[in-house]
Amino acid sequence: MDSFKVTGIIAAPCTAFKTNGDINTDPDLMDRYIKFLQDMKITGVYTTGTNGEGPSLTVEERKTVTQLWVDRAKGKLTIIAQIGGCNQREAIELAAHAGKVGVDAFACMVPSFFKAKTEEAVVSFLEPIAAAAPTVPFYYYDINFFTGVYLNCRRVLELGKSRIPNLKGAKYSCREMPGLFDTSLVDGMQVMSGTDDQFLPILSLGVDVPIVNGYVGRIFYDLHEAYKNGDMKAARKHQERAIRLSKLREAHGGGIGSVKAIMKCFGFNLGPARLPEVTFTDAQVEALRQDLKKNEFI
Amino acid sequence: MDSFKVTGIIAAPCTAFKTNGDINTDPDLMDRYIKFLQDMKITGVYTTGTNGEGPSLTVEERKTVTQLWVDRAKGKLTIIAQIGGCNQREAIELAAHAGKVGVDAFACMVPSFFKAKTEEAVVSFLEPIAAAAPTVPFYYYDINFFTGVYLNCRRVLELGKSRIPNLKGAKYSCREMPGLFDTSLVDGMQVMSGTDDQFLPILSLGVDVPIVNGYVGRIFYDLHEAYKNGDMKAARKHQERAIRLSKLREAHGGGIGSVKAIMKCFGFNLGPARLPEVTFTDAQVEALRQDLKKNEFI
Amino acid sequence: MDSFKVTGIIAAPCTAFKTNGDINTDPDLMDRYIKFLQDMKITGVYTTGTNGEGPSLTVEERKTVTQLWVDRAKGKLTIIAQIGGCNQREAIELAAHAGKVGVDAFACMVPSFFKAKTEEAVVSFLEPIAAAAPTVPFYYYDINFFTGVYLNCRRVLELGKSRIPNLKGAKYSCREMPGLFDTSLVDGMQVMSGTDDQFLPILSLGVDVPIVNGYVGRIFYDLHEAYKNGDMKAARKHQERAIRLSKLREAHGGGIGSVKAIMKCFGFNLGPARLPEVTFTDAQVEALRQDLKKNEFI
Amino acid sequence: MDSFKVTGIIAAPCTAFKTNGDINTDPDLMDRYIKFLQDMKITGVYTTGTNGEGPSLTVEERKTVTQLWVDRAKGKLTIIAQIGGCNQREAIELAAHAGKVGVDAFACMVPSFFKAKTEEAVVSFLEPIAAAAPTVPFYYYDINFFTGVYLNCRRVLELGKSRIPNLKGAKYSCREMPGLFDTSLVDGMQVMSGTDDQFLPILSLGVDVPIVNGYVGRIFYDLHEAYKNGDMKAARKHQERAIRLSKLREAHGGGIGSVKAIMKCFGFNLGPARLPEVTFTDAQVEALRQDLKKNEFI
Repeated sequence: MDSFKVTGIIAAPCTAFKTNGDINTDPDLMDRYIKFLQDMKITGVYTTGTNGEGPSLTVEERKTVTQLWVDRAKGKLTIIAQIGGCNQREAIELAAHAGKVGVDAFACMVPSFFKAKTEEAVVSFLEPIAAAAPTVPFYYYDINFFTGVYLNCRRVLELGKSRIPNLKGAKYSCREMPGLFDTSLVDGMQVMSGTDDQFLPILSLGVDVPIVNGYVGRIFYDLHEAYKNGDMKAARKHQERAIRLSKLREAHGGGIGSVKAIMKCFGFNLGPARLPEVTFTDAQVEALRQDLKKNEFI
Repeated sequence: MDSFKVTGIIAAPCTAFKTNGDINTDPDLMDRYIKFLQDMKITGVYTTGTNGEGPSLTVEERKTVTQLWVDRAKGKLTIIAQIGGCNQREAIELAAHAGKVGVDAFACMVPSFFKAKTEEAVVSFLEPIAAAAPTVPFYYYDINFFTGVYLNCRRVLELGKSRIPNLKGAKYSCREMPGLFDTSLVDGMQVMSGTDDQFLPILSLGVDVPIVNGYVGRIFYDLHEAYKNGDMKAARKHQERAIRLSKLREAHGGGIGSVKAIMKCFGFNLGPARLPEVTFTDAQVEALRQDLKKNEFI
Repeated sequence: MDSFKVTGIIAAPCTAFKTNGDINTDPDLMDRYIKFLQDMKITGVYTTGTNGEGPSLTVEERKTVTQLWVDRAKGKLTIIAQIGGCNQREAIELAAHAGKVGVDAFACMVPSFFKAKTEEAVVSFLEPIAAAAPTVPFYYYDINFFTGVYLNCRRVLELGKSRIPNLKGAKYSCREMPGLFDTSLVDGMQVMSGTDDQFLPILSLGVDVPIVNGYVGRIFYDLHEAYKNGDMKAARKHQERAIRLSKLREAHGGGIGSVKAIMKCFGFNLGPARLPEVTFTDAQVEALRQDLKKNEFI
Repeated sequence: MDSFKVTGIIAAPCTAFKTNGDINTDPDLMDRYIKFLQDMKITGVYTTGTNGEGPSLTVEERKTVTQLWVDRAKGKLTIIAQIGGCNQREAIELAAHAGKVGVDAFACMVPSFFKAKTEEAVVSFLEPIAAAAPTVPFYYYDINFFTGVYLNCRRVLELGKSRIPNLKGAKYSCREMPGLFDTSLVDGMQVMSGTDDQFLPILSLGVDVPIVNGYVGRIFYDLHEAYKNGDMKAARKHQERAIRLSKLREAHGGGIGSVKAIMKCFGFNLGPARLPEVTFTDAQVEALRQDLKKNEFI
């Protein structure tokens, strides 16, 4: 575990539901989804996070989803299970389960109702969760504009290093560039970024693993290749495309519903979004499809 | 159910934990707690809401707590079970359970991670939850500065009236006075306020059921009596005392830990606060006790 | 000066402009405006504050406006000149001028670009401004949601009392009810409220001088009378009307442009609003007029 | 003017005051300051903006400062006069003056008290200001976290292009990276960045003119050189140093006072900061000096 490092481009996949809202465990759908991600140059999945609607799933449902990804994708994709978004006791249970079924790594956010006021409280919250799967690499998931917890991520890693042996770094989905850079400087810790809008500037700061919507995987792959070749002009073109897609999505309403609607346009019926997120109507999907076509995203 | 209305002063009680963090179901402690609340002129309880650490409890634990309050307090206190702070499926399960064990009413907040963007989405979220106990009065719990969902509460009630037959009103814990007043004007709906800091101005607007920390019950009772007698000067004195206690609590750190620490000073060991809320050390409790004494709150 | 206290209902009047944007000093218009305010039961004016577009006027223009109000209204209305919204040096100049021309009192807000970080800094900022007219009663103007300066108003008054001899209190336009109440408890200081939306709850807290849009003067007068007679039901009806008018205004676009548009519907052409505030088109004024009529405000 | 483009590294210099708070026009001090900036590889100055305390100066003082920079630095440094932070009429007067005395370019922010609600209102506000010096290149100064005006900068440039003939682009001091990138894509417009914390990511997006504290000029110069040579590792080292200096400054209290205190440590007595900004005491300057030494910034 010591030398563990996530590499490549990680997707934050949706959780598929049936029409009645139950988890859809259809293996064919899963295999097709995994194939799609691989075609998009995706190397791993970050499951039941924000895109995966983790906080909207029951404990049992989350276990089902984790198991499903391990069953279908283990060995093909790096599997990082995000097990937070619930209370500490449930997170401990989910962490233990994730470790047992064999994920490659796991991550946890802090609660958004009761908001941690200090980095110390964050580490105390995470400690027993990480300890529930002590031999599996663990990441702190910082997404401040969702949780409302605006603390110093670097400080969390610094405090956490000595108290959480399996702590490997952070998924930093906050928008603050100096905070990302600062966090990335903590020795021995890996920072992954979680944003579709600013991968190029993040690359320039030395952070090279993005966790993104699967359908932008290829854009990010091309962006990264251009960057590695020193072709900044091409890299910017790809970044501009990623931002355009992100803005297009917002213009159509945004939210989990829009992600699932885009996936529908790519040929995947992943079912409704769970409330309070809103599911796109057929007409809304159609309008989105036209816009995606016009911009040559599909 | 048609003429149901909450009356008096409702407490938002703590959930008691053992030292190891498990729910403390000790009936003697409960009975003593209930006696304390009654002595404080409390007429009902709003369980597993914010003060009761609802969002930090597992589904099973929440059921245990609801059952406990029904077992010990039914008939003595109006029991309103707050069953939100989790995802919709769990809330439905909890609503059904609360209805079955016989609470007098129940309430539900919206999730704080995925944030409802429209009043329509709030109502759609609440609808099946309220329907899980269709013969029990239901209230929408609006606490915007905790959930991050800043929507129009009046509009939620207006939309909800036709779609949620057992909707009886809202617990409005937001700080906006015009919003409270506006919400209170929806025909047939009852608004209860959830703040220790502004009961007098709220009374002036015609909203007369507060949901508060149990230990301020008597201050609010006296405040309400003075108001009813037209003695605004006395009413202000009581309001000033309530604010002073609230500020004192904040000065010592605030949060659930501070509520439990105050209860300790009143002779109740309700155990630790659940992380990310922070438990007061003995020294902190002692400092708080001195301040409470100096201000003659204990 | 020692026993100075503002009484009655104060209007925050608009500043009239000609079509070309220059100050309109037409004495007939002024006299008609003053008559209108008196008919609305207004007892004083708070000039060149937010409604008076103080921060959009040049130093010379502000002097012209202050002089104008003193010339036409002195003796008829209490004149409180708001001289802030500019930098400290200009505020000192305006304070000295206001004192010289004979206003009854003056007030000053803090800058909104460079934001005071401590109450100490606020008092240091205000000190030489208040001292520029040392025999004229002075008020601190706290309007946090406009300036972005969220500090403790009570603390400003407490610190200011010993350093600013002519400090008489605060115009508290913030929305926080506990903050208002708290500030009102500082011995020897008068707090005036600056909101159209919550006068009744403010009255219940013992603060009885509102500073409002002139056109709601009569509603507030009736509200206050009802309150004094203990008729809370009637008081609430008036409060509801005031809120309805406020919401109607917001629904039509809000801002200074909407205030001037309403005044137009009352028969006063006060000219455009200064940019970045936006002037209503004739069509917008007409739509507003219909709504005001439908709700029987005109 | 058509092909005008700012190049190099621009400093946002302080405005020097005497002990009594008046503008310090000492030509020796100015010449020494200019020499310091040149030694720091600075190629231009952005005067009376945020660092230059523009919004705290009277109109006459601002003219004095603009004249002073033109007199001492014209030909040596590109001179961009920021003339906003006051009301529109004063900004028009300052723009005309700046044009007359011969600045190379000028810029204007929007007011922070009355907040523009649409990009249309921003352009309408800027239009006559830019027109007051129609042959001088003009830039929109967007600094949303200071003004409280969170609008779409790209949209302002797009709307402005057709209505403001001398519009050349924006100084984008906001922290949002996607917004910066997006704005930089408007054809024919130049975007300059205004932040000490994220120049490297900004460079990666193709924006290569920073407007910064003069004393970090050399760090930014070295950073830019490393970037141009494709040595990202070295570039990051320089960026890390710039962030460290920025954090050190914040840790000592931040604000204009801290900038002037740092300049004092570099041997420049630029006088007090204007209230509500706070001037560092000698002890505070000394503590800062120790920290700057320890980190080898001086």
